[in-house]
Amino acid sequence: MDFTKGSLLYEGKAKKIYETNHADVVLVEYKDSATAFNGEKKATITGKSRLNNMISSLLFSELKRSNISSHFVEQVSETEQLVQKVEIIPIEVVVRNIVAGSLSKRLGIEEGTALKKPIIEFYYKDDQLGDPFINEAHIEELSLATDAQLLFIKREAFKVNDVLKRYFKEKDIELVDFKLEFGTSDQGEVLLADEISPDTCRLWDVTTGEKLDKDVFRREIGSLTEAYQKLLDRIRGEVNHG
Amino acid sequence: MDFTKGSLLYEGKAKKIYETNHADVVLVEYKDSATAFNGEKKATITGKSRLNNMISSLLFSELKRSNISSHFVEQVSETEQLVQKVEIIPIEVVVRNIVAGSLSKRLGIEEGTALKKPIIEFYYKDDQLGDPFINEAHIEELSLATDAQLLFIKREAFKVNDVLKRYFKEKDIELVDFKLEFGTSDQGEVLLADEISPDTCRLWDVTTGEKLDKDVFRREIGSLTEAYQKLLDRIRGEVNHG
Repeated sequence: MDFTKGSLLYEGKAKKIYETNHADVVLVEYKDSATAFNGEKKATITGKSRLNNMISSLLFSELKRSNISSHFVEQVSETEQLVQKVEIIPIEVVVRNIVAGSLSKRLGIEEGTALKKPIIEFYYKDDQLGDPFINEAHIEELSLATDAQLLFIKREAFKVNDVLKRYFKEKDIELVDFKLEFGTSDQGEVLLADEISPDTCRLWDVTTGEKLDKDVFRREIGSLTEAYQKLLDRIRGEVNHG
Repeated sequence: MDFTKGSLLYEGKAKKIYETNHADVVLVEYKDSATAFNGEKKATITGKSRLNNMISSLLFSELKRSNISSHFVEQVSETEQLVQKVEIIPIEVVVRNIVAGSLSKRLGIEEGTALKKPIIEFYYKDDQLGDPFINEAHIEELSLATDAQLLFIKREAFKVNDVLKRYFKEKDIELVDFKLEFGTSDQGEVLLADEISPDTCRLWDVTTGEKLDKDVFRREIGSLTEAYQKLLDRIRGEVNHG
């Protein structure tokens, strides 16, 4: 798609969004910044923008092949991708296959325990409140999404999980959990949006349990770029890891 | 009901449970202890046991008149009541009509804001974990209740809300929110259980907003026994508060 980069529309913790000459398309530029614990922990990590942009582009493309549409249009540079313009629904949708992170603390279940079936959780996307865990009644009270939108989001999130779980398993990676965001287009269509990357997923090597995601940064257990690069190589099938 | 008090079965923060000569009936003895913030704040308050036992007995009786059954059998002394023996389902069921307490902090909505419609929340009854807020997927994962039990509990909780909201309104009291617990009988029947008292409800004077509940103790804004006695007098219709 031919395009020209316009003015900055929005800058978040991990991305900048620019206008383009197409009214319904924006340019996402990934940033070299890593944040955790609601922004309390911050760092600049050279090369992270490229890795997340590449990985997210590959994952959105994989989903498209499985008939799951998203805002993703195409990758246009190492750190940039074009996406459909949407208004983000302020709900973080978390799908879990294996217990980790906050769920382990909340329920007192050991990290690494397989869940009987995938669990979905909603968090209210609000930095000031610390992205609190909420339920569907709260979503209704706050008018964050309509009942129909929420139903669609839940179904879509489980579909994404089915596709990505299988996809990663083929690469000897366990999809532990991940966070999705959705947005509404000008036409009112609900679309999978934001990014799907090691910033938003927990991904463990099936055999060694090695973490290939942001927990490497959160828990300071290694080099983020090495872990993300390893993940990218695995996704591209560039490494023998039998 | 004729009965004899048997041996102590269980002692909790606010109540002692004794066996009786009837296999399916136990005696609940209310204690003069007040606790808040998951037991971090504690006090002995003479007269509290009597007030909670009286109020809880009156409220369970009121629910019975509205065809909502519970474990309650009858009040047998100022501080004791007989109840059906149940195994408590470890879920705290919170119903809210007006924003207060943790919901105000969670969603950033001012205390006193009326909700569009009643909200239900579930908390995992586990002192060690601090009774965490959970969703229905967590309940299923932990096998805390079956789908059918949970559906019954939700419907019953909203029915209790309808009855008590109207009941208190007639006494110029706003039922802000409350916590219910349910249990299963030996026959597998799910029954409303535990207590319904100013320890487990938020109750505000319709006109003045005066708190007639445990927030008086939690927030140290007055005498707990005076507030509870005022509530009991209102329930009994013994005071003119027009």
